[in-house]
Amino acid sequence: MATGHSVGAVTPRTMSFDTPLQFRGGGSIDRYELMYETYGTLNADRSNAVLVCHALNASHHVAGYYADDPRNIGWWDNMIGPGKALDTDRFFVIGVNNIGGCFGSTGPASIDARTGKPYGSRFPVVTVEDWVQAQARLIERLNISRLAAVMGGSLGAMQALQWTLAYPESVANAIVIAAAPTLSAQNIAFNEVARQAITTDPDFHGGDFYEHGVKPVRGLRLARMIGHITYLSDDAMMEKFGRSLRGARIGYHFDVDFEVESYLRYQGDKFAEYFDANTYLLITRTLDYFDPALDFGGDLKAALARAKARFLVASFTSDWRFAPTRSREIVKALLDNRLDVSYAEINAPHGHDAFLLDDARYHKLVGAYFDNISNAITRAGALGNNVIPLKAAADARKAAA
Amino acid sequence: MATGHSVGAVTPRTMSFDTPLQFRGGGSIDRYELMYETYGTLNADRSNAVLVCHALNASHHVAGYYADDPRNIGWWDNMIGPGKALDTDRFFVIGVNNIGGCFGSTGPASIDARTGKPYGSRFPVVTVEDWVQAQARLIERLNISRLAAVMGGSLGAMQALQWTLAYPESVANAIVIAAAPTLSAQNIAFNEVARQAITTDPDFHGGDFYEHGVKPVRGLRLARMIGHITYLSDDAMMEKFGRSLRGARIGYHFDVDFEVESYLRYQGDKFAEYFDANTYLLITRTLDYFDPALDFGGDLKAALARAKARFLVASFTSDWRFAPTRSREIVKALLDNRLDVSYAEINAPHGHDAFLLDDARYHKLVGAYFDNISNAITRAGALGNNVIPLKAAADARKAAA
Repeated sequence: MATGHSVGAVTPRTMSFDTPLQFRGGGSIDRYELMYETYGTLNADRSNAVLVCHALNASHHVAGYYADDPRNIGWWDNMIGPGKALDTDRFFVIGVNNIGGCFGSTGPASIDARTGKPYGSRFPVVTVEDWVQAQARLIERLNISRLAAVMGGSLGAMQALQWTLAYPESVANAIVIAAAPTLSAQNIAFNEVARQAITTDPDFHGGDFYEHGVKPVRGLRLARMIGHITYLSDDAMMEKFGRSLRGARIGYHFDVDFEVESYLRYQGDKFAEYFDANTYLLITRTLDYFDPALDFGGDLKAALARAKARFLVASFTSDWRFAPTRSREIVKALLDNRLDVSYAEINAPHGHDAFLLDDARYHKLVGAYFDNISNAITRAGALGNNVIPLKAAADARKAAA
Repeated sequence: MATGHSVGAVTPRTMSFDTPLQFRGGGSIDRYELMYETYGTLNADRSNAVLVCHALNASHHVAGYYADDPRNIGWWDNMIGPGKALDTDRFFVIGVNNIGGCFGSTGPASIDARTGKPYGSRFPVVTVEDWVQAQARLIERLNISRLAAVMGGSLGAMQALQWTLAYPESVANAIVIAAAPTLSAQNIAFNEVARQAITTDPDFHGGDFYEHGVKPVRGLRLARMIGHITYLSDDAMMEKFGRSLRGARIGYHFDVDFEVESYLRYQGDKFAEYFDANTYLLITRTLDYFDPALDFGGDLKAALARAKARFLVASFTSDWRFAPTRSREIVKALLDNRLDVSYAEINAPHGHDAFLLDDARYHKLVGAYFDNISNAITRAGALGNNVIPLKAAADARKAAA
């Protein structure tokens, strides 16, 4: 059980940006909006901000609930709140829905002012680098020069890592959970099947289904079902469902017979109701393309040489999507750069999903790491801190490029 | 490299059965045909016959090639032929396409005499037990009282195991490769996504697509792509494809960028051309439902107590579909019944597909086991053998039930 309690009712906010966003893969959008939420209070030094990055299907709604929808609880609520591992009594926490998303930030379903129609297939392909760029503008607008930490699991962890490379002066700590430095061929393969399920759905209409008043529900549903299998370990599935039947005996048909079938269909149906198919395509590509070592001839050590943050890296023994060996690649490259790294391999049976679950050892680990950050902030506050503003750092980077 | 050479040009045959086949899950078909091939010569004692059972997408065409289509080589040609592990100079080998298949044996695309239309959705759900029953009738018609061996990999291995339970007096040896006593929840989950891909394809028409002149190609293609991921190990995929690109650089689109995507699409396209969607549904259900311990309160030892055969069980270290731990469950239950079991865990990097590949250690192991069978046959032939005819055994079983 998580200690601490909820941040309570929260309110999402929108921030609008008029500066065009250039995408790494080409294309741009002239203006965009980001949905975000904050919890806790920014201290006088503005030095206690923690950015929490979301993974595939999550959003800016990281903790707490909505007053008008109390069952809509933030996706990392067990981790974040007063007295929790990421303690909102001490930290100012920011959640943001990424560009290309479908929870309020500008994405494929948004209206493109140039055409008056939803972007659809014309939305640029996004990368982790683009997301981090957009997030940095938000952080800058919040008048935060340097983040106490950037934190994420899975794809969120890739963003945390990317922050330390794009804005090395602006991140004190990166918390990189259930991550991989790149997707494996098998990871890409699962993403590709999911994408093919969506793009071959007759209701996809090349990505411009909005104009046809339909949604590629069948494809999204399959994509989510595939995803779910990879989020759970074989053992966790066996523990949760085994070969249990829904009915008293085998039905000898193609309807639901086994509990695991019912679970997958339910998850698929639910997801297909609320998620945008184009966002799914974009986010899986974001995963596929993430490869910080690409511009360094595959040398991850060289790629991570820019980083200056302190790192907490954590992996889960039963995670076969991003297995501990993949996290260890990151750890090794960081250590090879003589960076300050804590690494924990957490014995957990739940597979990749473990990073979202309420596990006492895991939360204690993260909590202890944040205690150290909190102590450092207190010490720096007492001494007067000296940070380079985010924009100055970005300008310096641009000049160096 | 496999030793030995090809059995050469082979000719498939058809055998027709007029006795109705009752299915375990309900339903029956009044008459049916089985496609089969044989290689080698049945000895005077009719004691050197080996039945080879196929897995998901294979057929009766196990070895050799067709004179009019020399590139159409049998799916286990590296294992079977003169001088090969299963030596057709010494054994009479039988391959058969199972009931419900789509390579000539009666299946969902066959015409139902009762309606004059393809069976389609009306074809009974098949089980491993039904297949073995149909195979036994073929073996009986070939005037073979007792098989020297039944052999298979994956789903084929489940049939070999089932033979030892349904016809314990009629199988001298069972060769059970890359098997599991049941599917895990994860195995069922992958099958379920594949089935959902097919049944939600608008061209599926509830299974009666034949009458609409279409095929659920999109669904079949996805099903095959999912399957292929589970047949290969993560390492084998990384070795084979890594993150290699098709083009010179990342394209930032949803078309093929990575080699692994191209491979999956190609495999999916090829499969969707020749395979029947209803057969795919049936065969995945056959896998899901196989559970010899079901009628024994989950006690596999009790379930296998009927078996009298000698066993060779083999698994592959990198097989995550049916991992070695699953084969060991079978081995333990056989040993608990004081049966004669050889078990080998073969160090191979290729995942589940390893059972089909040309691996010298693996083939030597199987070859050595067949040498022993061959020697036993020679000894028995010299002494005069004493076997219970298949039909008598089946009748005895029926009387006991």
